[in-house]
Amino acid sequence: MKSFSLNQLAALLNAEISENSTQQFTGLNHLDAATSDQVSFIGSSKYSKNYAASGAGAVVINENLKHLVSGAIPLLVVKNADLAMAKLLSLYEPDAPEFETEISDRAYIHPTAQVGSGCKIGPGCYVGARTVLAEGVTLYPNVTILDDCSIGTRTTIWSGTVIRERSVVGAFCIFHNNVSIGADGFGYRPADDGSGLVKIVHIGNVIIGNGVEIGANSCVDRAKFASTIVGDGCKIDNLVQIAHNCILGRCCIMAGHSGLAGSVTLGDGVVIGGSASIKDHTTIHSGAVVAAGSGVMGDVAAGKTVLGYPATDSRDKLREWAAVRKLGKA
Amino acid sequence: MKSFSLNQLAALLNAEISENSTQQFTGLNHLDAATSDQVSFIGSSKYSKNYAASGAGAVVINENLKHLVSGAIPLLVVKNADLAMAKLLSLYEPDAPEFETEISDRAYIHPTAQVGSGCKIGPGCYVGARTVLAEGVTLYPNVTILDDCSIGTRTTIWSGTVIRERSVVGAFCIFHNNVSIGADGFGYRPADDGSGLVKIVHIGNVIIGNGVEIGANSCVDRAKFASTIVGDGCKIDNLVQIAHNCILGRCCIMAGHSGLAGSVTLGDGVVIGGSASIKDHTTIHSGAVVAAGSGVMGDVAAGKTVLGYPATDSRDKLREWAAVRKLGKA
Amino acid sequence: MKSFSLNQLAALLNAEISENSTQQFTGLNHLDAATSDQVSFIGSSKYSKNYAASGAGAVVINENLKHLVSGAIPLLVVKNADLAMAKLLSLYEPDAPEFETEISDRAYIHPTAQVGSGCKIGPGCYVGARTVLAEGVTLYPNVTILDDCSIGTRTTIWSGTVIRERSVVGAFCIFHNNVSIGADGFGYRPADDGSGLVKIVHIGNVIIGNGVEIGANSCVDRAKFASTIVGDGCKIDNLVQIAHNCILGRCCIMAGHSGLAGSVTLGDGVVIGGSASIKDHTTIHSGAVVAAGSGVMGDVAAGKTVLGYPATDSRDKLREWAAVRKLGKA
Repeated sequence: MKSFSLNQLAALLNAEISENSTQQFTGLNHLDAATSDQVSFIGSSKYSKNYAASGAGAVVINENLKHLVSGAIPLLVVKNADLAMAKLLSLYEPDAPEFETEISDRAYIHPTAQVGSGCKIGPGCYVGARTVLAEGVTLYPNVTILDDCSIGTRTTIWSGTVIRERSVVGAFCIFHNNVSIGADGFGYRPADDGSGLVKIVHIGNVIIGNGVEIGANSCVDRAKFASTIVGDGCKIDNLVQIAHNCILGRCCIMAGHSGLAGSVTLGDGVVIGGSASIKDHTTIHSGAVVAAGSGVMGDVAAGKTVLGYPATDSRDKLREWAAVRKLGKA
Repeated sequence: MKSFSLNQLAALLNAEISENSTQQFTGLNHLDAATSDQVSFIGSSKYSKNYAASGAGAVVINENLKHLVSGAIPLLVVKNADLAMAKLLSLYEPDAPEFETEISDRAYIHPTAQVGSGCKIGPGCYVGARTVLAEGVTLYPNVTILDDCSIGTRTTIWSGTVIRERSVVGAFCIFHNNVSIGADGFGYRPADDGSGLVKIVHIGNVIIGNGVEIGANSCVDRAKFASTIVGDGCKIDNLVQIAHNCILGRCCIMAGHSGLAGSVTLGDGVVIGGSASIKDHTTIHSGAVVAAGSGVMGDVAAGKTVLGYPATDSRDKLREWAAVRKLGKA
Repeated sequence: MKSFSLNQLAALLNAEISENSTQQFTGLNHLDAATSDQVSFIGSSKYSKNYAASGAGAVVINENLKHLVSGAIPLLVVKNADLAMAKLLSLYEPDAPEFETEISDRAYIHPTAQVGSGCKIGPGCYVGARTVLAEGVTLYPNVTILDDCSIGTRTTIWSGTVIRERSVVGAFCIFHNNVSIGADGFGYRPADDGSGLVKIVHIGNVIIGNGVEIGANSCVDRAKFASTIVGDGCKIDNLVQIAHNCILGRCCIMAGHSGLAGSVTLGDGVVIGGSASIKDHTTIHSGAVVAAGSGVMGDVAAGKTVLGYPATDSRDKLREWAAVRKLGKA
């Protein structure tokens, strides 16, 4: 168990200490649940009232909130308690799951696959023909990577994830559990004789940039031709759908249950709220924000925030909602 | 094949029989599909018209609907046909899938893991370091449980499910296929140098109570610190998202495609309808109901029903919808 | 790498060539990305302006758009460029992933299972007791099929997919990654003593017709009794939920994130847009269209298009939306 003194924590956080303590700290907790060996946080005024009764051994607090609390618990006074919390979380990060052997003999690795130095491959994994794992790739148990893929340096792939053939994944990515990368895009055409639907073959692939994180049970389909692209630094939450031929710029965020229909383009730094969905062939330009729950049916200009179903400028939509509320009471 | 006489069924259901029959019954079916060895049901007046032409060998009917039907098919007259159906479904429950050997030698079980008596572990399963399975736990093929987890008595975990390190799961739970428990919560902060997003480490875990059921392809993320908690008796449908630091009370219900953003709190007995989503840091108090498709953006009082996007009191929302419909016709 | 001459492509597409070329063509690409060994497409007037500067070696164009372009790149003039593209995609389809051996000795096949001729079964697969795989079934690595299932001729099942006991799957189906078929339906009743919720046992199964495609991480639950049925030729996208006792007719389409609650019936050729959800016990009659994002709360007549939440006739809903927009500006 990791353990640090108050002085060590103060040094890490560049914090001023309100009083000394000989306590060793082994973790973090909420004010109302923390014990004497745990650090807690006050990052907004509404939590200051919970200070006095807290069992925490120390409390990190914003400089500008310090005057709101008084009591015996030592304070670590910082500019930004949220940032301090993020640093402490890194400090207390537990070790990752262990591998009894680095490359399990219960994994199947095709004779033509290449495995870089320092890779870890758990039991039940499958690495297909001609697939290349760069240095330091970790595949947790029961990951499947099919043929002709390439996985970049130090990328981590958690159990249950499947990466279909010809996918290209960058370095320092994290794919959580049961992710599906590179399945066929969803496209059909009416049969010439009207008897039903004919599948449109998808010969493209998926390209994922560096530093991309993809949440559990999310899906990125491969392109009809060319590539579905997820740019460097994108962060994708759980249960997200990214359809064939979508192109995401750098550092986009998509929250849980959100979805892009086919051939949607996102600029850089676009934020898609939870459960929002975007119509096919739409472009959301850089820095735009789609609020949670929205249904976007047309292009969104750079930097704009849209809201609602159908999505419009968020200020317009809030006015619409207010008007409808009034109408309902009339 | 399980087979019961009319008298046996009547005894089980505490039913009155309208006339005797020597038929043996092997299952249940709809009125319009049932054969002479099957039982069918009339639990509401609208189905009574299908009685006469049914091929069923017997029909379970509500006492108060008996006067609506006349014909030759024996009736099992009960107070509540829906409850009687639930009892018959239990009676006819088929055997669970077989294990050739109780603990497959194609499963990987870490030398430091503990496996209770009566556990069944299928091929392709992974049980990580120091993980403890209590008595009678069943892992169907290709389940992954990583390090330092604990799984309670007689919990059943179906194929494809992944449980990440440090998760605590209660007794008598059922996790369906491809569930993801304990993946990293979704949290980032801007890098100090503005170059992109920095991952916030999530050092907490997931705690699942007793008697919890989690549907296929659903996700419960682990907490930033402390725990994401799903209380005793909660029932979670398929493709549901429960984000980091959510806390669910006892016996909550979440229907398919619904989602909770980070740090949402549900009281006891809360019902979240299908495809509904709840904003982060929101509290839905005990006994509240969120109707299907709703988008909840603020706290909901105990016992209240909210509806719509944005969600409001359901009666208010229905009035708004009526007003808008009228407006559209003006 | 597959390679074809201009004349070969023209013959396949029944196209008229604007001028000859000795180029060999190895693939397809967008006008602005294509190289001299790639074919590109102009299927609508808005792309015609990209013709002159394209690096493509040939361009397939609709007959009626030919007059909009002039330049050196040979044209393949066809009636329907979209259809021509679909044909070329089939032509250039890459080989499927390889199997080192047809039936991997790292797969577990129960002694009572039957495996048809020409089946391929990858490492980590599980085939349960009495399950029958017809001729030419392909199971990619880490597929789980439990007991008493039947999988039809030449059906392909991708990695991570789980098919629960007693499921019946037709011929020529494709199930993508991490699909969950046949999990318990979501049904509970209050306990007699009010102590919580009692699980309703689901003794039915799932029946999937021929030529059905089911997208990654989608779910089809089994029926309470009788069967959940997905008719011939249905095409289901990613992250779709089909609850217990739903019945889908022939050739229905369900786009990503859409969902059917319990006992929903779809006629033939019904189209459900992305993220749309349908209330339980509702019937959507043949040829009806539910627009993306809609929440359907009642039956929909054959051939009708509904839109919005709550869903109504699409023309009515568009009028409502226009009225609300006007109201917000008042």
